[in-house]
Amino acid sequence: MKKTTPSILVVNDDGITAPGIKALMDAMKDLGRVVVVAPDSPQSGMGHAITIGKPLRLDKVDIYEGYEMYRCSGTPVDCVKLAVNKIFKGKKPDLCVSGINHGLNNSINILYSGTMSAAVEGAIESIPSIGFSLDDYTLQADFSHCIKYVKEIATQVLQNGLPGGTLLNVNFPNISHIKGIKIVRQADAKWAEEFDERIDPHKRPYYWLTGVFQLNDGGEDTDVWALENGYVSVVPVQFDMTAHHAIPLLHKWAFNI
Amino acid sequence: MKKTTPSILVVNDDGITAPGIKALMDAMKDLGRVVVVAPDSPQSGMGHAITIGKPLRLDKVDIYEGYEMYRCSGTPVDCVKLAVNKIFKGKKPDLCVSGINHGLNNSINILYSGTMSAAVEGAIESIPSIGFSLDDYTLQADFSHCIKYVKEIATQVLQNGLPGGTLLNVNFPNISHIKGIKIVRQADAKWAEEFDERIDPHKRPYYWLTGVFQLNDGGEDTDVWALENGYVSVVPVQFDMTAHHAIPLLHKWAFNI
Repeated sequence: MKKTTPSILVVNDDGITAPGIKALMDAMKDLGRVVVVAPDSPQSGMGHAITIGKPLRLDKVDIYEGYEMYRCSGTPVDCVKLAVNKIFKGKKPDLCVSGINHGLNNSINILYSGTMSAAVEGAIESIPSIGFSLDDYTLQADFSHCIKYVKEIATQVLQNGLPGGTLLNVNFPNISHIKGIKIVRQADAKWAEEFDERIDPHKRPYYWLTGVFQLNDGGEDTDVWALENGYVSVVPVQFDMTAHHAIPLLHKWAFNI
Repeated sequence: MKKTTPSILVVNDDGITAPGIKALMDAMKDLGRVVVVAPDSPQSGMGHAITIGKPLRLDKVDIYEGYEMYRCSGTPVDCVKLAVNKIFKGKKPDLCVSGINHGLNNSINILYSGTMSAAVEGAIESIPSIGFSLDDYTLQADFSHCIKYVKEIATQVLQNGLPGGTLLNVNFPNISHIKGIKIVRQADAKWAEEFDERIDPHKRPYYWLTGVFQLNDGGEDTDVWALENGYVSVVPVQFDMTAHHAIPLLHKWAFNI
């Protein structure tokens, strides 16, 4: 641990009043100086969206005693950008933690998740970053069994740092007796969509996005496997999306041009 | 080329009336049966956002003669999900093309781009997918010099397919004499944010996101290098975001738990 008190940026996508962010704030308070910047309304499923066509609001708020807190009108990624630029002003935080999300962000969910995208944005800013999520979508979710793991993983990241261009995606099973931590990869899975089609009072159709999680991966080294077997899953994540293995293949294509 | 006429899903993030999607539709018409599903309003910077908390509209529209077109109230990723589920109904298209975007989506921009996220969603659905973008943000952008490359790259993908879990990110320089195609990787770069702070008529501050593109990569095998040197950049992209190289490192951490 650094000898000076670390500064810790806490963000989420469920919004500034979600119980999950309060649990994360309380856990981080023991590790350093906490600054909270979170959306003023729920932003689940916002992925890596940023606000371009309209201006943003950022207001200091006094929701919980003893915390420096700001609410932002934008997306989770906007929160990180505003925090770095307008609150930390160039002196970057030592750690960026996002969550604790109400609901899993394992496997392919990382792409859709505002919680994980905020952590990715932290990593793009060269801040050691971690996203935390619990397998319970409800507002009544109980995060208490996650806290010792949250603190331990954050402490390790503060101590060891993370390789450049990487961050951690941490997911918790919703069971009281967690077996331990597994370092794993993102499972190969997708959502098989099913749109619920309804008719509005004006006789026009509308659609609700629903879906079924479809696992295409029998590996025992994945986040899905770890969670199903009672472990905390820790996936190191990168934002270089290049499929490096496909470059030699494409070099063989004969472009007729 | 398959003997039966390929079906081609055309999407974008600039909205259904953007000149870029019309250029792409016209290019694809020579290669197969075109179905267009695009947002009813501009969705730049929406990343991989999906619509969860409200319902979606999907309406057949008759904007250009000879095309099957649908406008969607959601994000670019919603467009792909609705197209697969409600229009193609299980018989997936042979190709998904997104764009042509008004503005580059090279390097780190892939994360923020609705255009690229729509192509990523196509790949998640196991559809060979390509995102196309031109280095011209204006509505007056001229796409004519891109078309022969768009057709050639799409033809190659229809003929050869793409490795599972990958797609292509294709960017065009805004010059009339393109030198050729370069197969490259995503350059290491980021946006250095600068928020333009203003005061509203009610004396409250608000912020406009602006920024400067900051290249941290001197490589001559990147998309930034290719574009700056007059080439079309083609980056193979994957949506497995696991930092596989970091897994052995994390195994060495001694968790005190």
